[in-house]
Amino acid sequence: MRRADMAKEKLVKSITSMDEDFAKWYTDVCIKAELIDYSSVKGCMIIRPYGYAIWENIQSQMDAMFKKTGHENVYMPMFIPESLLQKEKDHVEGFAPEVAWVTHGGEEKLEERMCVRPTSETLFCDHFKNIVQSYRDLPKLYNQWCSVVRWEKTTRPFLRSREFLWQEGHTLHATAEEAQAETIQMLNVYAKFAEDCLAMPVVKGVKTAKERFAGAEDTYTIEALMHDGKALQSGTSHYFGDGFARAFEIQYTDKNNNLVHPFQTSWGTTTRLIGAVIMTHGDDSGLVLPPAIAPIQAVIVPIATHKEGVLDKSREVLERLKTVCRAKLDDSEQSPGWKFAEYEMKGVPLRIELGPRDIENNVCVVVRRDNGEKTVVSLDELETRIPELLNAVHKGLFDKALARREKMTYDAHGLDEMKEIADNKPGFIRAMWCGDRECEDKLKEVAGVTSRCIPFEQEEISGKCVCCGKEAKHMLYWGKAY
Amino acid sequence: MRRADMAKEKLVKSITSMDEDFAKWYTDVCIKAELIDYSSVKGCMIIRPYGYAIWENIQSQMDAMFKKTGHENVYMPMFIPESLLQKEKDHVEGFAPEVAWVTHGGEEKLEERMCVRPTSETLFCDHFKNIVQSYRDLPKLYNQWCSVVRWEKTTRPFLRSREFLWQEGHTLHATAEEAQAETIQMLNVYAKFAEDCLAMPVVKGVKTAKERFAGAEDTYTIEALMHDGKALQSGTSHYFGDGFARAFEIQYTDKNNNLVHPFQTSWGTTTRLIGAVIMTHGDDSGLVLPPAIAPIQAVIVPIATHKEGVLDKSREVLERLKTVCRAKLDDSEQSPGWKFAEYEMKGVPLRIELGPRDIENNVCVVVRRDNGEKTVVSLDELETRIPELLNAVHKGLFDKALARREKMTYDAHGLDEMKEIADNKPGFIRAMWCGDRECEDKLKEVAGVTSRCIPFEQEEISGKCVCCGKEAKHMLYWGKAY
Repeated sequence: MRRADMAKEKLVKSITSMDEDFAKWYTDVCIKAELIDYSSVKGCMIIRPYGYAIWENIQSQMDAMFKKTGHENVYMPMFIPESLLQKEKDHVEGFAPEVAWVTHGGEEKLEERMCVRPTSETLFCDHFKNIVQSYRDLPKLYNQWCSVVRWEKTTRPFLRSREFLWQEGHTLHATAEEAQAETIQMLNVYAKFAEDCLAMPVVKGVKTAKERFAGAEDTYTIEALMHDGKALQSGTSHYFGDGFARAFEIQYTDKNNNLVHPFQTSWGTTTRLIGAVIMTHGDDSGLVLPPAIAPIQAVIVPIATHKEGVLDKSREVLERLKTVCRAKLDDSEQSPGWKFAEYEMKGVPLRIELGPRDIENNVCVVVRRDNGEKTVVSLDELETRIPELLNAVHKGLFDKALARREKMTYDAHGLDEMKEIADNKPGFIRAMWCGDRECEDKLKEVAGVTSRCIPFEQEEISGKCVCCGKEAKHMLYWGKAY
Repeated sequence: MRRADMAKEKLVKSITSMDEDFAKWYTDVCIKAELIDYSSVKGCMIIRPYGYAIWENIQSQMDAMFKKTGHENVYMPMFIPESLLQKEKDHVEGFAPEVAWVTHGGEEKLEERMCVRPTSETLFCDHFKNIVQSYRDLPKLYNQWCSVVRWEKTTRPFLRSREFLWQEGHTLHATAEEAQAETIQMLNVYAKFAEDCLAMPVVKGVKTAKERFAGAEDTYTIEALMHDGKALQSGTSHYFGDGFARAFEIQYTDKNNNLVHPFQTSWGTTTRLIGAVIMTHGDDSGLVLPPAIAPIQAVIVPIATHKEGVLDKSREVLERLKTVCRAKLDDSEQSPGWKFAEYEMKGVPLRIELGPRDIENNVCVVVRRDNGEKTVVSLDELETRIPELLNAVHKGLFDKALARREKMTYDAHGLDEMKEIADNKPGFIRAMWCGDRECEDKLKEVAGVTSRCIPFEQEEISGKCVCCGKEAKHMLYWGKAY
């Protein structure tokens, strides 16, 4: 066996296969694709350059969508004084048990302890109270990119860590209708982003009361299905009514000169989206990245670099590709076999092989990461064919993920069937629900599933609640979730 | 007096004049230009949309310079376990007295308390130790955008706050020479950024041992002179030798198969740069922004909007301007006078007035924020003339700041003269120094000045130390500093 092949063998063997141990496969990919490293800080991860470049691509594209819908970025303090956190009753109950407390500044004990923000509703409310007096000051459409801290017991890279990066939108409106419309608008932005940039199909819907954000009147969500059949909540958008405004005494003078409370929303997505991408598209060779967020969209691997003209031609191809995509040439001393494995592991959407015979024929061989398909492309058509192939990869990933989700979505008509599916068939379960918390709790207890959402697209599977058999109100998606 | 003029009058009157009280003028500008708001978190500020948009412009342009010089972004945890902070002796002594300590996660007391990062050398070292084994793994050229916390006693928006946004570069190299070259390269990047993007002249030099970063072998700095004659350290670049590598046991195998320590640098700039811009270019009408970082580079103020065609023409001009700069049309109901004052306060580089008579003549009137100069510009030449005028504003700002700095830089030849200048003439003082810490301390005690830097561009003012009269080693910049 050649050294190169041995290297590839070694690299590939070092990932656990998905079927053998999905959790182990996942962390193997996170480490071997150099997305993260573990740190000396328990429960916190280091996001390495390749992982962070993915986040930068997510950020820049999502940020553009926020700005297009009229939102502005701001920055709030990372600390919340305890008294401020306590102002909204439900909110503090939800978050106080899992915050990190700062008690000392230098040598001195603080008069009032402060938590590191787990989310910033309280800080935004405190600020809104200061800057909003009249209907002319509304709406306020704010967003913040930052890190937050939640003291989780068990952690996992990207999916659940004590500190994570996110964006949190916070908006204030004159009317309930306007705030509700904003909540839905931002959920749609998230869904569009998931589909267009992450090639990830999502179910849009509203959470049950049990699964609502602490302090919200309604929580909307996009839910995705991972490769192992578990659901991943991938973005949420909350409607607060005027609850926070009342708790924080935010008031404004309306057009009729009355002092009234405004209405509020918040919405967030996190670095968890990177985990979603790994578990939606990845395979036993490693990461598979949707082109829109791939730090490298096409990598050129020259073959027989010692032959005259190969490196020169590769550099020429690189310069041309750079005008249409994020391209890289790997002209290092490693063997082609090693490079193939390396960029497969890193999920680069297209590999471009260029050898002496290809150059002679004025072509290159393009290999798709999503399905291994090889295409011979004329060097005269690079600038049109490569973007086409990137689009094809995106579509291929989306279609495959959608087909899998459809295949892994089951309908349940009664409790026994629900349990049987939950025990044996990983995936979404669609089932009717009467609306009672008791039934929701029972399904968790008996079948081990939680309600993912009441989807906007309703379909009547039966007239009766899957649990109690009484008249059903909604069809829900249920599942085991990250 | 017309209502519009009254409004303008009111707005302008509400800022304290620079000469009356510079500190008050500064905070007035921060608040009235809507850069910041105070928060309920003592010593922490809220960066409002207009202030944050300036930071975004700084970030994107500086980040591009970092990437061009081969640096990659990463994200480290925000917490540092106490034992990790203590590994490098000088470093912990410098920072421990001013960190915020997290002692509890939820209800539980932590086994080991952690501080919120005041800077991340220790975390990067801990990571480097993990990922660097061979000379092939070097160099590592990393940068991080994040917020840090230092428990300051007295705070001021942008200049000194308990939490601030910054970037911190951290690099690891095979040789001392390479690390030293990196330190200087990044100082030059900062100087170029200050001059090209902030229109702010800076003095480049090295800090004395007393003013060095905790743990560094050398600290390089760019020093700027503010309107009130105080110096502002605007960016620093540190050379660490292999001190941190030894403390953290970072080793790699070199080409000769020896296990050796690598060499390290770090470099940082902060939201303090926004403070520097305010105090370098601002005036009694408010903020004055250099075009490169201005969220709005040109604002169109239509005159007599009720007249037919004015708003239509304004919108047409806006669309055309958008192709060459960041333009805004203010078609709100406020009077032109109110708008003039508002955008002067916000430091918008160019105001474009467009009224019925202008439209008739196919021109607009362009007013420069930096010097009030009015130019009549043909509407046929908008796309070429506006960028030219923006360049003129940049050059005007830089030249004015440089001229002021030169006027406010004095040479001192002895201690009495030094004290006389320090007491009566705000600005930089250039004076010779023997190199002894004692003299440095005495100058602080007697004249109230600190050493700003030993500039790269040396000039022999006399042969003798300004303090002790012994043989001088260097010419230094001294001053009172923020």
